[in-house]
Amino acid sequence: MEKENGAKPSAEEETTERWRFGENKAVAAAGGRSIRATLNKVVSSVDENGPRPLIPLGHGDPSVFPSFRTTPIAEEAIVEAVRSAQFNNYAPTNGVLPARRAIAEYLSKDLPYKLSPDDVFLTAGCAQAIDIVVSALARPDANILLPRPGFPMYEARCTYTNLEMRHFDLIPEQGWEVDLDQVEKLADENTVAIVIINPNNPCGSVLKYQHMEEIAKTARKLGVMVISDEVYDHLTFGSNPFIPMGIFGDIVPVVTLGSISKRWVVPGWRLGWIATTDPKGILSKTKVVDSIRSILDITTDPATFIQGAVPQIIEKTKDDFFNNIIHVLRDAAELCYNIIKDIKCITCPHKPEGSMFVMVKLNLSYLVDISDDVDFCSILAKEESVIVLPGSALEMKNWLRITFAVEPTSLVVGLERLKSFCERHETN
Amino acid sequence: MEKENGAKPSAEEETTERWRFGENKAVAAAGGRSIRATLNKVVSSVDENGPRPLIPLGHGDPSVFPSFRTTPIAEEAIVEAVRSAQFNNYAPTNGVLPARRAIAEYLSKDLPYKLSPDDVFLTAGCAQAIDIVVSALARPDANILLPRPGFPMYEARCTYTNLEMRHFDLIPEQGWEVDLDQVEKLADENTVAIVIINPNNPCGSVLKYQHMEEIAKTARKLGVMVISDEVYDHLTFGSNPFIPMGIFGDIVPVVTLGSISKRWVVPGWRLGWIATTDPKGILSKTKVVDSIRSILDITTDPATFIQGAVPQIIEKTKDDFFNNIIHVLRDAAELCYNIIKDIKCITCPHKPEGSMFVMVKLNLSYLVDISDDVDFCSILAKEESVIVLPGSALEMKNWLRITFAVEPTSLVVGLERLKSFCERHETN
Repeated sequence: MEKENGAKPSAEEETTERWRFGENKAVAAAGGRSIRATLNKVVSSVDENGPRPLIPLGHGDPSVFPSFRTTPIAEEAIVEAVRSAQFNNYAPTNGVLPARRAIAEYLSKDLPYKLSPDDVFLTAGCAQAIDIVVSALARPDANILLPRPGFPMYEARCTYTNLEMRHFDLIPEQGWEVDLDQVEKLADENTVAIVIINPNNPCGSVLKYQHMEEIAKTARKLGVMVISDEVYDHLTFGSNPFIPMGIFGDIVPVVTLGSISKRWVVPGWRLGWIATTDPKGILSKTKVVDSIRSILDITTDPATFIQGAVPQIIEKTKDDFFNNIIHVLRDAAELCYNIIKDIKCITCPHKPEGSMFVMVKLNLSYLVDISDDVDFCSILAKEESVIVLPGSALEMKNWLRITFAVEPTSLVVGLERLKSFCERHETN
Repeated sequence: MEKENGAKPSAEEETTERWRFGENKAVAAAGGRSIRATLNKVVSSVDENGPRPLIPLGHGDPSVFPSFRTTPIAEEAIVEAVRSAQFNNYAPTNGVLPARRAIAEYLSKDLPYKLSPDDVFLTAGCAQAIDIVVSALARPDANILLPRPGFPMYEARCTYTNLEMRHFDLIPEQGWEVDLDQVEKLADENTVAIVIINPNNPCGSVLKYQHMEEIAKTARKLGVMVISDEVYDHLTFGSNPFIPMGIFGDIVPVVTLGSISKRWVVPGWRLGWIATTDPKGILSKTKVVDSIRSILDITTDPATFIQGAVPQIIEKTKDDFFNNIIHVLRDAAELCYNIIKDIKCITCPHKPEGSMFVMVKLNLSYLVDISDDVDFCSILAKEESVIVLPGSALEMKNWLRITFAVEPTSLVVGLERLKSFCERHETN
């Protein structure tokens, strides 16, 4: 709108008055909760001209390191699928049938009942599986129970969809088990689901059968479904084996989230799934499955040729590959635990036995010039070019999440830098 | 909750009373607007045991047909990227830099200014680009101007995010140009954007320079940005060449949406982009760019190795490939137009000159036993195994969208079946 006197608008007016659009603060609030946003801030403290290479202990992606290279079988499955030109087209809403069948069979091996391909919905990584499940549950007035610490994509997506969050604690002294008394107190008639992450990110813990059964029974009593995030499935290296929550599907309906991202070390391939491990079909009868399908109808898909490669990836990958990754992770976790044990200002309540992370507590009273976990991570990034995730991003102020899933030589260097950093800033 | 007398709950109670979760009706409303949902319904009418192969004239995906096979150069770029093992990791929020640079250069060729890689955000196909842009704009009380007919993903995403939609008409008698008088009447102080699709889906029209300039000036006057959906960029075969809306970026900020899906005929690869074609940097100053970034932080990405293949795909593809696709489309459009011209109950107001579609009007008065466009498409699917999209899905009751981008031999068969179907149901 031209000014009436014909004068040109000032630069200020140009940007603030002439235009009707602007920042979406609700979206900023959701995005601000993401690990990406937090890590981008921490990384910005790194001295780019520093002499030492950056050691990324902040996120769960070891795929760039030689020890974690995926199997050539998976790569060749992709090559074959793309060269076949049979998968250049749009995929069906739920994903291509052979991929859904392969995943159904893969998951059924560990279950007391058999999944059908129709129980499986392909997603563009586990991040999109979280997006879709949260969206499906986000009815007005509903609330969801989330673990603290947890994985911030849940918080981000709940913020975005206005699904009320209620946090229950994982108890560090009890191997990060769920505080079930608290869960019962938090739930009310509008609670629709409880989220469990197992093997656990960020704690590195693995749930025992008996505790999982208690979770299932509590959920049933409360009338809520269990969302079991098993993106780190089978990545266990302590005394507790991986047990899928779906084995309790006859007690309570379980929505299982998974992906090839972690076990095959290909997070960039963006191939995940939602599986309804629910032998009584309650999720179908209550139309939750219809809601999932509705969202899939208006959401992007994993690339079709990656879907097309899934049967070969799952069927042909050798145990040797999996065993080797577990071996590397076990050694890395051991190394990490032993170095951290000797750092005065850091306490590790539970030795990691699964996933790629460990959660440790910062004892600020031992530190001279550091105010909190965010401050710790920023100064560490600046002085040592080592990236660690501040616990605040996971609702755990003054804790840290450290990933040990990096090349072993880098891990040693990174942890030694962390140790000397702490010693430098500790009280005498 | 067990009954106090210990009796087992009935099956009815099991599904309706014991559980706190259920259908999300808001999500169902959004999903119901998708082309996928509409086409799934139409396809369900097909006689699966019928003797004749299904002819899909319902959606814009010719990738399964030999005449539309993508170039081996694109396939080999993927093969090289996946075998390099350099792209198995998570991608950065905005996408990998070489891909953003290649797309910036690709788009800059047709612009009077040069885009930087920071003007480009990679998305998992154009569908996700729409998702992200609509989400970024969906502030409370905002509204957006959408074309009628249009592409229902906009309506679905606006429904999902509660962004108010106001529809302006494209005028069939004026080559489907925008009714700009109506646009001015519809807009108010809460209008944030106007969506233009060019080359046009579903109309097959291509906008002229002068009309585009008028659109830009109107948008500037109203203080709204232009969202220019150019997913069919360069797919023109009439007298109007493809002109990117971004050339008017000095008049009004333009958000350009694009993809390799259509020009390279690989919709299943899920690689698209959002480009801010905005030389004055208004989208940045008003923080719209920040909102886009916030959503990208909590959203899945295109597969990293597909991003990694983009520079080679763009730089190495030969003109021969593009020219051949245009040649096939031109012939198909001509054939389609000529056959439809002879069908009494169907009128085609504008010969297609771009994209993969034509929009035609159903004259129900010539039809004996068909009540509307949805009825027409269902019975056509049932009797002839030919799929066509009912105009109702595009806010155009009693119109049809027909795609001519299928193998030429199938197109002839499909259109002849359509013709004989009409003749069978027409009044004498």
